[in-house]
Amino acid sequence: MKAAVVMGSVSDLPVLEKTIRTLKNYGINVDARVLSAHRTPDEAHAFASGAEDNGIEVIIAAAGKAAHLAGVLAAYTTLPVIGLPVKSSTMDGLDSLLSTVQMPPGIPVATVAIDGAENAALLAVQILSLKYPELKQKLLDHKRSMAAKVMEANQHLQKEIESI
Amino acid sequence: MKAAVVMGSVSDLPVLEKTIRTLKNYGINVDARVLSAHRTPDEAHAFASGAEDNGIEVIIAAAGKAAHLAGVLAAYTTLPVIGLPVKSSTMDGLDSLLSTVQMPPGIPVATVAIDGAENAALLAVQILSLKYPELKQKLLDHKRSMAAKVMEANQHLQKEIESI
Amino acid sequence: MKAAVVMGSVSDLPVLEKTIRTLKNYGINVDARVLSAHRTPDEAHAFASGAEDNGIEVIIAAAGKAAHLAGVLAAYTTLPVIGLPVKSSTMDGLDSLLSTVQMPPGIPVATVAIDGAENAALLAVQILSLKYPELKQKLLDHKRSMAAKVMEANQHLQKEIESI
Amino acid sequence: MKAAVVMGSVSDLPVLEKTIRTLKNYGINVDARVLSAHRTPDEAHAFASGAEDNGIEVIIAAAGKAAHLAGVLAAYTTLPVIGLPVKSSTMDGLDSLLSTVQMPPGIPVATVAIDGAENAALLAVQILSLKYPELKQKLLDHKRSMAAKVMEANQHLQKEIESI
Amino acid sequence: MKAAVVMGSVSDLPVLEKTIRTLKNYGINVDARVLSAHRTPDEAHAFASGAEDNGIEVIIAAAGKAAHLAGVLAAYTTLPVIGLPVKSSTMDGLDSLLSTVQMPPGIPVATVAIDGAENAALLAVQILSLKYPELKQKLLDHKRSMAAKVMEANQHLQKEIESI
Amino acid sequence: MKAAVVMGSVSDLPVLEKTIRTLKNYGINVDARVLSAHRTPDEAHAFASGAEDNGIEVIIAAAGKAAHLAGVLAAYTTLPVIGLPVKSSTMDGLDSLLSTVQMPPGIPVATVAIDGAENAALLAVQILSLKYPELKQKLLDHKRSMAAKVMEANQHLQKEIESI
Amino acid sequence: MKAAVVMGSVSDLPVLEKTIRTLKNYGINVDARVLSAHRTPDEAHAFASGAEDNGIEVIIAAAGKAAHLAGVLAAYTTLPVIGLPVKSSTMDGLDSLLSTVQMPPGIPVATVAIDGAENAALLAVQILSLKYPELKQKLLDHKRSMAAKVMEANQHLQKEIESI
Amino acid sequence: MKAAVVMGSVSDLPVLEKTIRTLKNYGINVDARVLSAHRTPDEAHAFASGAEDNGIEVIIAAAGKAAHLAGVLAAYTTLPVIGLPVKSSTMDGLDSLLSTVQMPPGIPVATVAIDGAENAALLAVQILSLKYPELKQKLLDHKRSMAAKVMEANQHLQKEIESI
Repeated sequence: MKAAVVMGSVSDLPVLEKTIRTLKNYGINVDARVLSAHRTPDEAHAFASGAEDNGIEVIIAAAGKAAHLAGVLAAYTTLPVIGLPVKSSTMDGLDSLLSTVQMPPGIPVATVAIDGAENAALLAVQILSLKYPELKQKLLDHKRSMAAKVMEANQHLQKEIESI
Repeated sequence: MKAAVVMGSVSDLPVLEKTIRTLKNYGINVDARVLSAHRTPDEAHAFASGAEDNGIEVIIAAAGKAAHLAGVLAAYTTLPVIGLPVKSSTMDGLDSLLSTVQMPPGIPVATVAIDGAENAALLAVQILSLKYPELKQKLLDHKRSMAAKVMEANQHLQKEIESI
Repeated sequence: MKAAVVMGSVSDLPVLEKTIRTLKNYGINVDARVLSAHRTPDEAHAFASGAEDNGIEVIIAAAGKAAHLAGVLAAYTTLPVIGLPVKSSTMDGLDSLLSTVQMPPGIPVATVAIDGAENAALLAVQILSLKYPELKQKLLDHKRSMAAKVMEANQHLQKEIESI
Repeated sequence: MKAAVVMGSVSDLPVLEKTIRTLKNYGINVDARVLSAHRTPDEAHAFASGAEDNGIEVIIAAAGKAAHLAGVLAAYTTLPVIGLPVKSSTMDGLDSLLSTVQMPPGIPVATVAIDGAENAALLAVQILSLKYPELKQKLLDHKRSMAAKVMEANQHLQKEIESI
Repeated sequence: MKAAVVMGSVSDLPVLEKTIRTLKNYGINVDARVLSAHRTPDEAHAFASGAEDNGIEVIIAAAGKAAHLAGVLAAYTTLPVIGLPVKSSTMDGLDSLLSTVQMPPGIPVATVAIDGAENAALLAVQILSLKYPELKQKLLDHKRSMAAKVMEANQHLQKEIESI
Repeated sequence: MKAAVVMGSVSDLPVLEKTIRTLKNYGINVDARVLSAHRTPDEAHAFASGAEDNGIEVIIAAAGKAAHLAGVLAAYTTLPVIGLPVKSSTMDGLDSLLSTVQMPPGIPVATVAIDGAENAALLAVQILSLKYPELKQKLLDHKRSMAAKVMEANQHLQKEIESI
Repeated sequence: MKAAVVMGSVSDLPVLEKTIRTLKNYGINVDARVLSAHRTPDEAHAFASGAEDNGIEVIIAAAGKAAHLAGVLAAYTTLPVIGLPVKSSTMDGLDSLLSTVQMPPGIPVATVAIDGAENAALLAVQILSLKYPELKQKLLDHKRSMAAKVMEANQHLQKEIESI
Repeated sequence: MKAAVVMGSVSDLPVLEKTIRTLKNYGINVDARVLSAHRTPDEAHAFASGAEDNGIEVIIAAAGKAAHLAGVLAAYTTLPVIGLPVKSSTMDGLDSLLSTVQMPPGIPVATVAIDGAENAALLAVQILSLKYPELKQKLLDHKRSMAAKVMEANQHLQKEIESI
């Protein structure tokens, strides 16, 4: 099982750490790299064209501002491409979101929330779980663990509320 | 191969025809239904919980306004859920888009463009193609066919431009 | 008199303290809990379905981002549900607001301002005051107290202005 | 049982017909009137101040653009005020929504969706049902009827889908 | 010459200091006060109705969020009312701006920029200068002084640029 | 009494007819002209610089898109300049509004609603009424007439409502 | 003198006719073609990489939605690339604008207004006029002709206004 | 080779340092100055009208809020004008962007990203490179250098990722 995590700039790494860690937790090999749709178009082209042959099964692409990266990779592959819009210094991520999600007919990008680093990874795992059923149980465990944490938070909450 | 296409209201069918037709063109069985996160929460719950047991491998959920449908289904399954925001009579689809894509950590929704009916289907096919490699060739053929159509349009364009 | 205060995440508690304190000041019993439309859908379902039988008369639901919580609870009850959109790290609360207020026909959510914690409580009190007229006087007192504070601020202001 | 339906301009009536009809269907007396926060401020003041004495138990206020009506009425009463933002010729209703919902602390307005005429009425019914339990059954019937309609739509849908 | 400066909350004073100081610099008497369209509607009504009789010739009203103050004062007077939208903790002032400027036909509010404290005062001076021509020269002097400052900044700039 | 009505393009005339008619109804002389901040900058400069000497006492400037007209005229005069943002074919008037209202410190523009043609005129009348008190009575009459029309609409409304 | 006019889809031709006609009026050779950043990435790459060798001196790229075309071409050339955001069926062109203009450091796109077809051509002419001074006079003539048309419109306006 | 860098306020200098430094790095003479469309309209007029005669070949204009500067300069010259929208204290730069880019037909402004200081300079260099081919090689070198930096970042990234 192998997923690529591509970022438009190395400055996006703090956002993407969560993505990479989550994928690793599910036992998925991660091919992480910096590739820019605009500064390294040839490398982006080569990467996306060869991704499948290199064993990559799903691509996560994170970029900010006029975020063309996910769309440009999707143009060169039929692998599912997950777009992760990154909030930049202006426009609060709206530019990244619209540039990523509003793809024209024919070339979809599976877009998650602005800075939704964990969800990008979980979506990749869900997609891979169709082919690798062993991931299913882990996803279910995660769902249960999330629910359990909410229930635990409840107990904590009851004490907090006493003092309000 | 089986995909579910769920719509929040039967009035969304004109948007979704393209989705269903595209899936069928790829030989994918379609389980289409109307389910509302708000008006039929129990049915939505039952559908999503049992989707995997019913052979469904990917879910496309289309809704407008405060579009909770995709997120609510995703809460009950570990299958990949594709969210298709539908433009409604106000806010030009921005409400549907944000309600679909801005999911909190833990429960991703793979969001496509507002009214991006064809792309919702193509994303489902790409996801299924990991498990069913026979879809790959069709996806490649479609990519080539799109490129060919653009090139054909070019020839048409040259004549049009003469007369400008 | 009993109101529920439900939050999508325990991290929303700082916003909701004001809500809970205001309700308590009016002598209303508060059932506060963390419930997620996405991470604990079954618990959310159970809570909303049983709310009325548990003596709850109005529900306040606070959530951020794709804020489905209020709408999901409203799907399972005929009690009035007050939606409190919480500002999250991107989009300045616009996503929370639209996801909460733009409900489709049939399932209303009574939405207050982004981070409008006190108003969520006051709206609950106004609603309860129809059945419990003893709350009316307190609401009037609060209105008068607010007016008095504005008038007091005026006196303070006159001194400040001298020195400008 | 009595609800007021106040509109900022008689041109809002087409939107509000659904509100009035829904209230009547639940057996609620409707006091409908045109009142402008800006053109008839004295009448708006007099109406809101005397609403409770006139037997009104909940107020629905619909207005567009810089929609001050709901907020201005709420300033003069402790009755719950439901704000219905009306889409006008520019800004797609965003101005109406923000002017209605973003109320400052102390004076809540229970805001529903832009042009959410039916939901304004249903919210009023839910609020009244706390005091008048006979409305509860009707609300439940409505919920069931909505669900039944969705299920019926499903049967219709299956036929439609055959031909796609 | 007398202008009123009305603020929705004393917390708006830091923004309005510039307004008051500018008016004083032009020799205009300032009647400053806190008045809330929602918390002190009667006082707002009384103030606006009596403003002209009290010698006030122009009103500046500053408010944030669902900023109804300027519009509500304008409803009760035929004096020119200048609306100053104040940025609050969410929505970056867009709510204040739209609530102030998008007034319905019949009741104008002369709106300046979000947090445009100095311009609110200068606009008041321009308006008063029609009646009090002695203000004209001061306005021209200010225009010249602004231009001179820009030209001075240029000289400073040339030095700064050397070192880039 | 003389007001100028300046439009960025003759295509704005349908919006401005209401402005001109309203000014005439108040007995104000109207100097109407097309002037573009971008296409006729010299004429705009000459007009604004000489406006006061030509007896103009207030300027209404209407423009769409990147609406610089009001600001550019305001740069050349100390007369009050009223900005009327005109909705154009995209962005629903938001570009016109922000370009008109968000003026930097020193040069105010009194902005009215998008397409707020009547209010631009009424604001001009209010401003002129400081110097020409004979306008006051007409403004009061107009306020009363608006209120009367609302009250008449009410009678009409009562009949309409019977049949709902 | 040669400019390329590239459109993401042949459906953009109606918008671009004005661009092509304007360029031709200035005696500029036009290389027009349909190229999609997503459907024909190789052709887009080849076109942009070879543009300079083919005598092209400036590129105009028009696209809608997640409009990556201008940015993708700019990645492969050092020629100036003018981006023309095209309004599509949702979001009123805001998605096209942000996707075109918000380019990351290193790869600029010279963006004009949404659907600003004529300005895209005029900007190309201005750029070319640095190298081809014979274009300067034509640009000046156009500026004068625009001013003359505004002045003519004024004469027409005066007659129209009589009858208001 | 000479470019002008014009800023609406000296407070924009920190943003523009990058612009000036980049131009200098390409060996382009920089004429930098503060000019306000509103506070020094005559100087802005004089500057733009005489720019070409003063050897200036391209103008970069930076401004915030209702950013009229680029458009006003473009009205007085046929040189290409690059607009650089500067983020100000409210609206996150959206006002600056729309005021700069949404120019009416006839007067284009080549707009770059909000705070896109480096790209404004690079666009100027690209434009100048048509006339001064010696700039081409430097632009290509810069493109290669950017690509090389991305590739270097990749090596750094691989180490970082080990530890996640």
